[in-house]
Amino acid sequence: MISEKTISRLSLYHYLLTTLKEQEIEFVFSRQLANMANSTPAQVRRDLMVTGYEGNPKRGYTINELIVAIEEFMGLKEGVDMVLVGVGSLGRALLSYFYPQKPRYNIVAAFDKGSNSDRVVSGCRVYDIAELAPVLAGQRVTMGIVAVPAGAAQQVTTMLCEAGIHGILNFAPIRVKVPRNVYLENVDLAVTIEKIAWFANRAAGKKE
Amino acid sequence: MISEKTISRLSLYHYLLTTLKEQEIEFVFSRQLANMANSTPAQVRRDLMVTGYEGNPKRGYTINELIVAIEEFMGLKEGVDMVLVGVGSLGRALLSYFYPQKPRYNIVAAFDKGSNSDRVVSGCRVYDIAELAPVLAGQRVTMGIVAVPAGAAQQVTTMLCEAGIHGILNFAPIRVKVPRNVYLENVDLAVTIEKIAWFANRAAGKKE
Repeated sequence: MISEKTISRLSLYHYLLTTLKEQEIEFVFSRQLANMANSTPAQVRRDLMVTGYEGNPKRGYTINELIVAIEEFMGLKEGVDMVLVGVGSLGRALLSYFYPQKPRYNIVAAFDKGSNSDRVVSGCRVYDIAELAPVLAGQRVTMGIVAVPAGAAQQVTTMLCEAGIHGILNFAPIRVKVPRNVYLENVDLAVTIEKIAWFANRAAGKKE
Repeated sequence: MISEKTISRLSLYHYLLTTLKEQEIEFVFSRQLANMANSTPAQVRRDLMVTGYEGNPKRGYTINELIVAIEEFMGLKEGVDMVLVGVGSLGRALLSYFYPQKPRYNIVAAFDKGSNSDRVVSGCRVYDIAELAPVLAGQRVTMGIVAVPAGAAQQVTTMLCEAGIHGILNFAPIRVKVPRNVYLENVDLAVTIEKIAWFANRAAGKKE
């Protein structure tokens, strides 16, 4: 059984390895990766073991091969296909962020209330929300992003789950409920910002 | 001592109350707020007690007054002023998201490497990173957003802390270190997406 934390760390190592590759570095030791990831060499080696790829004690890991091993293990070779629901200010920001700069993360279709079928935002087709099930039926997408207002988030989440989505990234500032076989992560930017502001203001005030 | 979780919940109640106010609802009971926030009425009442504002047992809380009480307690009355470092694809998406749609969160200045002084993105002035300390010296900003590549994140974070910033929202996919009196939150979208994709693919595969 592989934990969420292991998966998160593998994803981080993958990112770090691609930045090293961009600098035309060929080999890396576990202690170097550990240093970049604020981890320990033993942890890095244990995590990478799940991919089945082994480093060479003298040269370390061959970066190119390790990247491929992580991608194969995580099923990321062809990138991640996602659908987005909600094309308001956040949805538009996400579309402009993921397209075309992030080819590894593909928003294959977007959905919005009252959208007509030839609306395109940042290169992505925006369908009416009523077309969610038929559009998804023809795709092998397993992940959905919820970027609608709080009041619509539960309904949209339920629609995604019923249409066969098994992973939800919820940006709506409300806790939604999902079936047991669906994986859910919440990212609430407003709450995060207000929390940071509160602690920052207190810390700044204390010093004055 | 008020916990991070209490602050997060107050921020969520504030958001929920503003959505109720938009629907021209005047009063709300703790059990209604609890239902919206996936919490319990006792938890809601305990959280709101820190603001010093009390509801009426018959009508519940007066929404307008409770909003003001939370804003006063959290120091949000004039919104949150922030600076942004890094105006790549993520930074631009954040600028377009926060301006002008979110007047409560103001990015008062942005900084980027090699930016000339008359660059403006989504209505926000973008200074060269070298101007960080002088620009911040004239502002009462306590919070900074880091949206630079991993390789630059620690340096930028250190610059922000030295310029008097006490809260950091780090989007760079790397763990940065901050002094003890600085509050740090990490949001790593790529790692979050890859983690969700992993679990979603496994859940989808199991069903087939």
